[in-house]
Amino acid sequence: MHKVKKIIDEDLNDIPLGIFISIIHRTRMMYLNNKLKSLNITASQFLYLIGLYRKEGQTQEDLATHFFIDKGTVARGVKKLEDKGFICRRTDPNNRRRYLLYLTNEGRSLMPEICKITTYWEESMNEDFSKAEKKQIKELLKKLTLKSLNKLYDAEENLNE
Amino acid sequence: MHKVKKIIDEDLNDIPLGIFISIIHRTRMMYLNNKLKSLNITASQFLYLIGLYRKEGQTQEDLATHFFIDKGTVARGVKKLEDKGFICRRTDPNNRRRYLLYLTNEGRSLMPEICKITTYWEESMNEDFSKAEKKQIKELLKKLTLKSLNKLYDAEENLNE
Repeated sequence: MHKVKKIIDEDLNDIPLGIFISIIHRTRMMYLNNKLKSLNITASQFLYLIGLYRKEGQTQEDLATHFFIDKGTVARGVKKLEDKGFICRRTDPNNRRRYLLYLTNEGRSLMPEICKITTYWEESMNEDFSKAEKKQIKELLKKLTLKSLNKLYDAEENLNE
Repeated sequence: MHKVKKIIDEDLNDIPLGIFISIIHRTRMMYLNNKLKSLNITASQFLYLIGLYRKEGQTQEDLATHFFIDKGTVARGVKKLEDKGFICRRTDPNNRRRYLLYLTNEGRSLMPEICKITTYWEESMNEDFSKAEKKQIKELLKKLTLKSLNKLYDAEENLNE
């Protein structure tokens, strides 16, 4: 585990928006990895468990599209979760050539603890903010997410023209 | 390249803060990978070039600490950039057992294009926001970054107790 130094406000001046996002993302992943270690899953893998917990019977492609992760990365993560016995794949009755993914009982039994860990991170981020500020943060992040997704969409459209 | 669908506002309701951050981070990385491909570098590698461009003669550990990335990941990225001839390592004159990293001329020649690409993403995120809103976004992201870093710091402290 990479050792983090205690950071103060002044360490974070003149940082571009993209770098802030990167740092929050990476420190969240490190925090989650740290906490999820005892469950034998990583911060990249737990996302697929959450996806299947919300809606079972999805394909790998569904998970990739839903979480905006490339298909190769999803395939590797899903394979590892299968090897660990947390998810299983069954042939799609409507299309014998593709597989649908399901949580195993063992995978499902991890969910309360996983939800507790992610909720705790989420609550720590929101603490000290007023109700109005929390709403504002969500709205801003939603706007930025929308912009970032559509920027990528436009770039791909241009590539295909 | 993973195909992104055009997203509308309503697709992003009821998403936790951590997931917004993840999506912005991942779509930014996909966008940058897309644009950096012609320069023969990835979105994970370009960060080390930027770090060395700002301050040459850093160690791998310096880069890991500065960008909050684990040492193994930095070591692999640095090795790839070295193999491509964009950076080189020299023995530290003050400590013969460690290496300092420098950009090669070829690495330095990529910087204007790299800066153009990252600045363009940054500007796209900020467009349509008023000056006051931009300031507010930065302040909020700074607060969240600080919280996320200190949350991780606390978790590590607890582990070591």
